[in-house]
Amino acid sequence: MRNIGILLSGRGSNFVAIADSIAAGRIPDARIAVVISNKPDAPGIAVACKRSFEALVIASKGKAREDHDREVAASLKQHGVELVCLAGYMRLLSPWFVQQFPRRILNIHPSLLPAFPGLEAQEQAFAYGVKISGCTVHFVDEELDHGAIIVQKAVHVRDDDNERTLAARILEQEHLAYTEAINVVLDGKFEIVGRRMKLRTQNSG
Amino acid sequence: MRNIGILLSGRGSNFVAIADSIAAGRIPDARIAVVISNKPDAPGIAVACKRSFEALVIASKGKAREDHDREVAASLKQHGVELVCLAGYMRLLSPWFVQQFPRRILNIHPSLLPAFPGLEAQEQAFAYGVKISGCTVHFVDEELDHGAIIVQKAVHVRDDDNERTLAARILEQEHLAYTEAINVVLDGKFEIVGRRMKLRTQNSG
Repeated sequence: MRNIGILLSGRGSNFVAIADSIAAGRIPDARIAVVISNKPDAPGIAVACKRSFEALVIASKGKAREDHDREVAASLKQHGVELVCLAGYMRLLSPWFVQQFPRRILNIHPSLLPAFPGLEAQEQAFAYGVKISGCTVHFVDEELDHGAIIVQKAVHVRDDDNERTLAARILEQEHLAYTEAINVVLDGKFEIVGRRMKLRTQNSG
Repeated sequence: MRNIGILLSGRGSNFVAIADSIAAGRIPDARIAVVISNKPDAPGIAVACKRSFEALVIASKGKAREDHDREVAASLKQHGVELVCLAGYMRLLSPWFVQQFPRRILNIHPSLLPAFPGLEAQEQAFAYGVKISGCTVHFVDEELDHGAIIVQKAVHVRDDDNERTLAARILEQEHLAYTEAINVVLDGKFEIVGRRMKLRTQNSG
């Protein structure tokens, strides 16, 4: 049984999607070992409690980044977490934290990176007038929205969309993409060449 | 009959695709009135001659940007051109030129803009490790690869791709995208709100 740890700061819709995927057998042999929020009032924590997951608040307010990260990492390790999934975690991770879980931290971003990094990616894409946006699951490295890409899903922008309808359709794809990416990473049958993540074929070893 | 003018600097594969689309009736009531290269040795000019299109070299070398643009614009107007299609035209257009053909200059770029502007977009995308790239047809404004987007097409990057195979699949989509975009612009049934180009519905006038 592989242990997944979730970090969130808000409602954690991707946390719920991961939990649902595990419950439905779409992520085999895995469980959510702990859900950690850096914000005491994150609605995702209430959901985690209601669903009887181990749920913790490790408040970040007023703490130096690495001090907070050390508390979080200690808790993740104590729960035997081998894969860390960010689900709307609104805090940059320190290089120290990233090194604790090499290629074991995933994030999801609501755009086709490298387009529209940062906050409100869906709104950025809508305002830019792209005809295709989407979402990206990537490994987390020391830079914001930057690590090697695992899965991307495209979403067509419709003429009658507004920011909300577009964000809602992207969110549906996020849930599919995260499940797919978690399976790839837990299976371990991939290689990263430069920045390119590829599935390992039998020939390539 | 609507007159299209083509500007190119190289082989002009998108020029050939547009010519083929017109010949096949996919761009109705239109013709290529003139093909202009800023480079004397552009292979696209030889193709234009062979296909009996009006083909001109207006060399840009050593000329100030706007001086050259004035020669090109004069020729386009002389040929009654109402839509200018860039097909690998390796020269920035002056603001003066852009103002001569408001919302009447199109460019195609081999990425999903705003990702990977500039040269060798396919190589940039491949090296970045995106899982989805594509192409963009957009109006030309004063900034490089920047104007309002008319059509985008997504292309999945495969694990066994290299830069060439990816560029070849993007090129297939470029040909489809350019034909689609030319029809939208010639039909004139669109509106631009901010940067967003939308088809005009009957209700919106």
